[in-house]
Amino acid sequence: MSAAVSIKIEARDGEARAGFLHTPHGMVETPTFMPVGTKGAVKGLTPDDLRNVGAGVVLGNTYHLYLRPGVDLVREAGGLHGFTGWTGPMLTDSGGYQVFSLAKIRKLSEDGVEFASVYDGSIHQFTPEVVVRAQQDLGADIAMVLDECPPANASHEYHSESLRRTARWAERCWDAHTRRDQALFGIVQGGLFPDLRRESLDRTVEIGFPGYAVGGLSVGESRPEMLEALSTVAPELPADKPRYFMGIGDPVGLLQVIGLGVDMFDCVLPTRLARHGAALTRDGRINLKNSRFRRDFTQLDPECSCETCTGYSRAYLAHLVREGELLADRLVSLHNVWFLTELCREARAAIRDGRFDSWWRAWSQRYENS
Amino acid sequence: MSAAVSIKIEARDGEARAGFLHTPHGMVETPTFMPVGTKGAVKGLTPDDLRNVGAGVVLGNTYHLYLRPGVDLVREAGGLHGFTGWTGPMLTDSGGYQVFSLAKIRKLSEDGVEFASVYDGSIHQFTPEVVVRAQQDLGADIAMVLDECPPANASHEYHSESLRRTARWAERCWDAHTRRDQALFGIVQGGLFPDLRRESLDRTVEIGFPGYAVGGLSVGESRPEMLEALSTVAPELPADKPRYFMGIGDPVGLLQVIGLGVDMFDCVLPTRLARHGAALTRDGRINLKNSRFRRDFTQLDPECSCETCTGYSRAYLAHLVREGELLADRLVSLHNVWFLTELCREARAAIRDGRFDSWWRAWSQRYENS
Repeated sequence: MSAAVSIKIEARDGEARAGFLHTPHGMVETPTFMPVGTKGAVKGLTPDDLRNVGAGVVLGNTYHLYLRPGVDLVREAGGLHGFTGWTGPMLTDSGGYQVFSLAKIRKLSEDGVEFASVYDGSIHQFTPEVVVRAQQDLGADIAMVLDECPPANASHEYHSESLRRTARWAERCWDAHTRRDQALFGIVQGGLFPDLRRESLDRTVEIGFPGYAVGGLSVGESRPEMLEALSTVAPELPADKPRYFMGIGDPVGLLQVIGLGVDMFDCVLPTRLARHGAALTRDGRINLKNSRFRRDFTQLDPECSCETCTGYSRAYLAHLVREGELLADRLVSLHNVWFLTELCREARAAIRDGRFDSWWRAWSQRYENS
Repeated sequence: MSAAVSIKIEARDGEARAGFLHTPHGMVETPTFMPVGTKGAVKGLTPDDLRNVGAGVVLGNTYHLYLRPGVDLVREAGGLHGFTGWTGPMLTDSGGYQVFSLAKIRKLSEDGVEFASVYDGSIHQFTPEVVVRAQQDLGADIAMVLDECPPANASHEYHSESLRRTARWAERCWDAHTRRDQALFGIVQGGLFPDLRRESLDRTVEIGFPGYAVGGLSVGESRPEMLEALSTVAPELPADKPRYFMGIGDPVGLLQVIGLGVDMFDCVLPTRLARHGAALTRDGRINLKNSRFRRDFTQLDPECSCETCTGYSRAYLAHLVREGELLADRLVSLHNVWFLTELCREARAAIRDGRFDSWWRAWSQRYENS
């Protein structure tokens, strides 16, 4: 079977790679930051906004959409594309992460996981087959296998058993997946244990997925621990397949994982920060609630050309933030997502020019020391 | 002195009038619905959105802007136009209505009104001179005199004294107003008493303002009472000056006041409704929280061509509303404001064609009986 989703790597610089991700809903340049539309909408932004900020792949969360409004309804609407109006590439997670982090687990077994809905306490069961069917109904370009995401501090023994069950679930997902215009990606787990990361990698790659995610990181461990764990597996992932690091969105972290050969990453960070009045700039993160911005009539990030930066001053945005105006969330979210997509664009250029290492060090230095 | 703002009436149909309002920031067709940007932003919408929905004049509230972020700051930013990025015509109210409805009044005297801020309890005094200076700093195309807006049920005696003080304040505002690129409008008060409405009208018109508002209505009285009071004064207002009815935004009421010869009106209704999940359609107001919209994949108003109606289904909007997504407020606000500006466009066409009376009756019949 020809893959619905494939990557073509055009340039390498150390471990970092730049290329093109091909999907049924269009091509995306990689590395690429994927904004998260948890409940079928990136908070405050329309599909037009997402196109304008240069978003490539947009995420949806199966856990939330399964519970509300329900995958049947989304399927009737023509899948997530028809429902939300976003016509570009999409990816859905399996819901595993949310079940293990948000829901009240009632029973975890070989079959799957039973949990109580965060919305109304109703009881549901996610099995590999259930989440594959749900994601086929949602109809994103990329679906993910069901995985368990143990806490960062779980024991070697726990992680060992967990990753093996996750690998068996991955096989069941693979068997259950039938939609030819959708790619199913595997997920490597194993916590912070190098031997378990390698075992999870081997077991997952053996199945032969068209793409791989590294999961279970960025969940509370330190940054060096995270990078150490990622560097154990990243070089061993099939070079001709897309590599997705789940859940990172701080600019420096994003550059670090790009440096380790990651092609795709997602995070709610840019929109969540915006709702707290925080904006990303080349000179570091700023909080617009700070009184020094009250009379600052300069633009949010002087080097940014997004709609927010070109249309409004820091003083106006700071006013909107302090007054809790809806427009604050929208305008700062738009800037923050633009900022990360622009950062990826610059990273791709640096990789193509063979200057990624010096570029990202200088970039991070300025960002962290302003 | 040549007026900064003038109206040219091009067509009359009964009392209804259609024309062009000329302002330093552009021309607007009348009758026109003016969306309210209370704190310097129409909730959830950008200046681009406002242009797209066909907004003409945008309002700002002096009371709120005076307290936050302060008129000095707005003046430094280049006035409300520079601060908010809206380049079309603007109008600021005097703050009188908010002082009398929101604030804790400490002292009302011939000089002005002393009140405690709704934000932090700090004490402020609005006099005719203070509010004129504030509005000159805000720099809208149209400023309003300071008026007292007594409760709908205040006595004849109270209203009588109040309107005379308001008339004396109007003279002081007129004397204090020096900005040549801004028009200052008078406000007719007098409650529901025909004799007092006429007295207020005479005293206000005598001053010779370039435009007149009818205030103190739509504040709790019945609709027939409101229309009765308006019809007492509307025909007596100078025919060659713009007429502004303060605070109406329900579609039927808006057509009724157009029928009585009003050119301009404002209301927070379209954006406030949106934040409660309610949308205006030609077949009446609907609430998207209603379960019948869960699987309704048709467009919000089948005859509307706004961005919301052409881009999203009722089912998707209902989902966003139920989930409290930011995008719900934005998309429904955009539709509701579009709906009222489109309604004005249709009213203008009906007036020009000499069929306003039959048109608005049929329109209201459908809206109210669906």
